[in-house]
Amino acid sequence: MAAAAARGAMRAVRVFEFGGPEVLRLQADVPIPSPEDAQVGELSPSSPVSTDTRGAAPPRPAQALLSARSHAQDAAVLIKVHACGVNPVETYIRSGNYARKPALPYTPGSDVAGVIEGVGGRVTAFKKGDRVFTSATLSGGYADYAVAEADTVFPLSDKLSFSQGAAIAIPYFTAYRALFLKGHAKAGESVLIHGASGGVGIAACQIARAYGLKVLGTAGTEQGMNVVLRNGAHQAFNHREANYLDKIMEYTKMQGVNIIIEMLSNVNLAADLHLLSHAGRVMVVGCRGPIEINPRDTMNKESSIRGVSLFLQTEEERRECVRAVLDGIESGWLKPVVGPEYPLQEVAKAHEDIIHSSGARGKMVLLP
Amino acid sequence: MAAAAARGAMRAVRVFEFGGPEVLRLQADVPIPSPEDAQVGELSPSSPVSTDTRGAAPPRPAQALLSARSHAQDAAVLIKVHACGVNPVETYIRSGNYARKPALPYTPGSDVAGVIEGVGGRVTAFKKGDRVFTSATLSGGYADYAVAEADTVFPLSDKLSFSQGAAIAIPYFTAYRALFLKGHAKAGESVLIHGASGGVGIAACQIARAYGLKVLGTAGTEQGMNVVLRNGAHQAFNHREANYLDKIMEYTKMQGVNIIIEMLSNVNLAADLHLLSHAGRVMVVGCRGPIEINPRDTMNKESSIRGVSLFLQTEEERRECVRAVLDGIESGWLKPVVGPEYPLQEVAKAHEDIIHSSGARGKMVLLP
Repeated sequence: MAAAAARGAMRAVRVFEFGGPEVLRLQADVPIPSPEDAQVGELSPSSPVSTDTRGAAPPRPAQALLSARSHAQDAAVLIKVHACGVNPVETYIRSGNYARKPALPYTPGSDVAGVIEGVGGRVTAFKKGDRVFTSATLSGGYADYAVAEADTVFPLSDKLSFSQGAAIAIPYFTAYRALFLKGHAKAGESVLIHGASGGVGIAACQIARAYGLKVLGTAGTEQGMNVVLRNGAHQAFNHREANYLDKIMEYTKMQGVNIIIEMLSNVNLAADLHLLSHAGRVMVVGCRGPIEINPRDTMNKESSIRGVSLFLQTEEERRECVRAVLDGIESGWLKPVVGPEYPLQEVAKAHEDIIHSSGARGKMVLLP
Repeated sequence: MAAAAARGAMRAVRVFEFGGPEVLRLQADVPIPSPEDAQVGELSPSSPVSTDTRGAAPPRPAQALLSARSHAQDAAVLIKVHACGVNPVETYIRSGNYARKPALPYTPGSDVAGVIEGVGGRVTAFKKGDRVFTSATLSGGYADYAVAEADTVFPLSDKLSFSQGAAIAIPYFTAYRALFLKGHAKAGESVLIHGASGGVGIAACQIARAYGLKVLGTAGTEQGMNVVLRNGAHQAFNHREANYLDKIMEYTKMQGVNIIIEMLSNVNLAADLHLLSHAGRVMVVGCRGPIEINPRDTMNKESSIRGVSLFLQTEEERRECVRAVLDGIESGWLKPVVGPEYPLQEVAKAHEDIIHSSGARGKMVLLP
């Protein structure tokens, strides 16, 4: 392989126990991983995508490299991380309350953008110096360097900055999955993106608009509403106005919306059922607790409530998402909006803010 | 037409105002309807099936008979009602709280079995004296006579009694719709019928077993469980046992069930989400109020909650249900289980009991 990781040390965020943002520890003496000791063999079969950023990359025992799958380990690359996306799911995983728990200790982060620093022996698609972005890492993205399988790494167009590159994978894959793979959205249908000014929200606005849907988005500030409107929404609504639900219904001429992409189900789900059209569906993308609903509200319209989890995507679905995203970049409609940027040492504040700050305006990014 | 309704009087249950069971008034002086004054033109376009038994059949003004659709009115038949099914939905409609409200006054009831008493001019499929059952009436089934469009009337096999014939349409159409048209059940999948000893429950057990599913059913009594087991369930569970949910999970080897047919969503929905397999779906067939759920439970498995309403069926879907039901009768697997039978004058008690009595054991039927 192209030499790179001369086994120096790097900074990386490490989680040794599940808990609040304070368990995110920035360490300066973490060995730089190399493509050869990528943990390909460690991936859970139920987690083909490894967007859960499980495990980190301490040197592996030699026998791991001799396993039946060891040849795949030559198919990894080492990336010098210039930006890493922060996604709400990473806070859920960190808390330990999420359905999927990585083995401890681990380094969070999967959506990396940066420059190729070295490649495994079987990698021909990339060379040192290439600008790239990833949809998964093997070693964790909240770090100076990260290892990723080559087929989860893509060239980063000159049109996009590193921070934009770090704002692509989880948000756009999630939005595409919710809209099309699980929500079966069709051109001409209407979609309400409930919480549209954050990472997944903006991605959903851009994709839905590009694919011919009527796009309604909500935000909690004037600024957020403008972001939503600039990114594909035909109409924006302020979810802090008391009567915004009535306004949405009026906008649909009292027909309701065909699809709702719901970022905060624990607050909105009961009302969402009243906003749906016949055969409408609420796609549950985000949720932070329980809520009382009346299931009868699903009967009158034969509407549905459907969970979405990127962790469950198949390899075929992942390829479809990748194609859509790369086409979107080339066509020009896919333009990630970068919001707050944090240096790596402020990772705990980033995790605090992504959950508690109001009025998200674009994707949160860590800059090592 | 074959003379029949010599405009004598009959008994019919009439509802003049929405409310409790006491608004069901048995009147003895209701004019016997005739196929000619069937209210075909009155059917709402949004209610192609008219299982909501809207309107009754007082003589229509002459101009109604001259409408553009009046020729269709020759396509109706008059049935001497021997039995009429009582369905929970009829209590919801009567209460006035249901999404669909018939014009007042009206006569409830759609699932009639009886004998053809007369036919409209264009009807060739039936003649006086034929044993039949219906999936809809135009004038209401809680009566001595009822008018129905000929294409919602089917020959009643000699294998089945009138009470069984009155136990077919809404229960079996609903079960088929929930399982296949909306739940997309496939042979080899597992289904939990949550509340399996009532009309829809037994229908779902029989259909699911006949179509190759693994069938689990719940009931609240030993007797109910035996009914469930005799009608196709591979295993029955007593939903009054504290640990019955654990037993269900154990029975599925902790994999969960693919589909739940849910008769009492307001009690069971939160727990149902834990019983589902990956990509599992809860079909909301019955619900009597709100319930707190955690929407996150749908995310981990990409499971869904889907409302079912027979009122929304299309003509094509109705035909599919009819084919399935007639095939089931011929094949022998479709055998409605008749439960409590009430004379027409006890209609209020029937409406009371279908909601409040515990341990349903088969379909409730009114006998004029």
